[in-house]
Amino acid sequence: MSTPPAGRNDPATLLAAARSGDRRARARLLSLVESGDAAGREVGRLVFPLAGGAYTLGLTGAPGAGKSTLTSGLLGRMRAEDLPVAVLAVDPSSPFTGGAILGDRVRMGDHVLDAGVFIRSMATRGHLGGLALATPEAVRVLEATGAAWVVLETVGVGQVEIEVAGAADTTVVVLNPGWGDAVQANKAGLMEIADVFVINKADRDGVAQTRRDLRQALELAGTDGDGWEPPIVDAVATTGQGIEEVWNAVGRHRAHLESGGELATRRAQRLRGELRSIVGERLHQRAVGLLGAAGVGRLEDEVAARRLDPYDAADELLGPVGA
Amino acid sequence: MSTPPAGRNDPATLLAAARSGDRRARARLLSLVESGDAAGREVGRLVFPLAGGAYTLGLTGAPGAGKSTLTSGLLGRMRAEDLPVAVLAVDPSSPFTGGAILGDRVRMGDHVLDAGVFIRSMATRGHLGGLALATPEAVRVLEATGAAWVVLETVGVGQVEIEVAGAADTTVVVLNPGWGDAVQANKAGLMEIADVFVINKADRDGVAQTRRDLRQALELAGTDGDGWEPPIVDAVATTGQGIEEVWNAVGRHRAHLESGGELATRRAQRLRGELRSIVGERLHQRAVGLLGAAGVGRLEDEVAARRLDPYDAADELLGPVGA
Repeated sequence: MSTPPAGRNDPATLLAAARSGDRRARARLLSLVESGDAAGREVGRLVFPLAGGAYTLGLTGAPGAGKSTLTSGLLGRMRAEDLPVAVLAVDPSSPFTGGAILGDRVRMGDHVLDAGVFIRSMATRGHLGGLALATPEAVRVLEATGAAWVVLETVGVGQVEIEVAGAADTTVVVLNPGWGDAVQANKAGLMEIADVFVINKADRDGVAQTRRDLRQALELAGTDGDGWEPPIVDAVATTGQGIEEVWNAVGRHRAHLESGGELATRRAQRLRGELRSIVGERLHQRAVGLLGAAGVGRLEDEVAARRLDPYDAADELLGPVGA
Repeated sequence: MSTPPAGRNDPATLLAAARSGDRRARARLLSLVESGDAAGREVGRLVFPLAGGAYTLGLTGAPGAGKSTLTSGLLGRMRAEDLPVAVLAVDPSSPFTGGAILGDRVRMGDHVLDAGVFIRSMATRGHLGGLALATPEAVRVLEATGAAWVVLETVGVGQVEIEVAGAADTTVVVLNPGWGDAVQANKAGLMEIADVFVINKADRDGVAQTRRDLRQALELAGTDGDGWEPPIVDAVATTGQGIEEVWNAVGRHRAHLESGGELATRRAQRLRGELRSIVGERLHQRAVGLLGAAGVGRLEDEVAARRLDPYDAADELLGPVGA
């Protein structure tokens, strides 16, 4: 009765190594999770009971808003308290580590050489459901391997990026004076996920107007009934101005969530939502697999042209009701 | 070789009767569609090739905003052009015809006795996907049985009601001076679906402020890129003031959609969306059926309590990946 020898790349071996501080093993675990294959699933299964211990901070905003510089400033505050930190840079437009992420690493400067900071760009090399589902698994890997803070930084404000950054305990939305056209399309989504607003590059014109716009947009969007009003903090991240205030606002939001039991509720809701997304994705993939993507497109076209009843099209895709 | 005799309640017999002007047969067809059973499906299949000929008008707004009175005014304009009209009153909170709908019928006054007007409250007695999926099938029944206009009036501004009213060719959102707290929660959704705004009860204070708020909210929401800016029309529906302007605004929007080919595109998109919703609902029902709703709830609870990995929960629900 012998089990096969565990190789260097075996999930359990990698996890033990990563938990002892081996950064390459930690990176390898994340790659396995991203791959979405059987080894990745095994990693997910191993880290799940070890996870849940980190506080997650989402950071989103238009490209060029200064998110990485702000992240660098916040890393400084976290590290001043000697907390181990991991940063996941999430860029749905880039399937593999690319230029944007290298630029981010430059902006995160000093921290790249700090053993207490782990910076990693997220990719999805086949993970079911893409980044929206790969990210929570990656966060659990980081939690299980020692992170006390996990920062989820997105490159832009697309739908997936808002979803990823919004699935954090506290979400910081970074804007610039004048907002910029870049955020217009998803403004409602940003209002919904923001726990803290930062008007970065606040040494430029238009801060007061941006603040007024933001207050008005918040008022129109209404509150989500948890009694928290997102503060609006001015910052000039390149000089460090406002970093302390942002850090304090994050701390106040954390205390707010923890004191009311809201943190546990939010996390439980995120897990329920994750299960529903996984089930939805699996069923969707099964349906697509039945006819192939081209077949689905043909059925959609037939229905759109009114040549086929949508219920008959669904029957053709899935088999008749009850089957 | 004989087919079974077609009874009085057989879908094809009912459809022929309804197309000859039999109102009870028309109502019976709608009940069959609402039931979601095999006869309802047969009705859907029969009417699909006969549908597509009516222009649909969605009307939504908070309870008490004056939608039914406004609908009554618009019915007057439609009937002045001798167009056959059908009104579907959609109330997700009431599974069967209830008091609210009776009240609506009173407000629709004269039109109740007009043979060219058909008023019906929507219910879903088992239709897959609820009102959001039952309504487009009901609209097709009304189109196939002679309606030139179909008015979809919702009782409130909940998620389903916005979805139903938004799935029309032109959607009118009815507000009152001061907006009212009732619309706060779904304000973003209302901004998105509105093609025409009506500030009803415009003889009250606060019209100018409401108009400014609305313009600002529209600006923040951005345009959807089709070149149409929703007009804001003042009205006092009880006296008939503004009805002509609302009717003209609807007409301008219709001309806008028709001139640019946008109407055909929108309708094709709605049918594609309907197919996707049907497939999604069927798969969801299949998943729920696998373990029963209680089983799904138990799995969600296990995951939320971090006792079960969401992927293992999905396996338990659907069978392992690839099965």
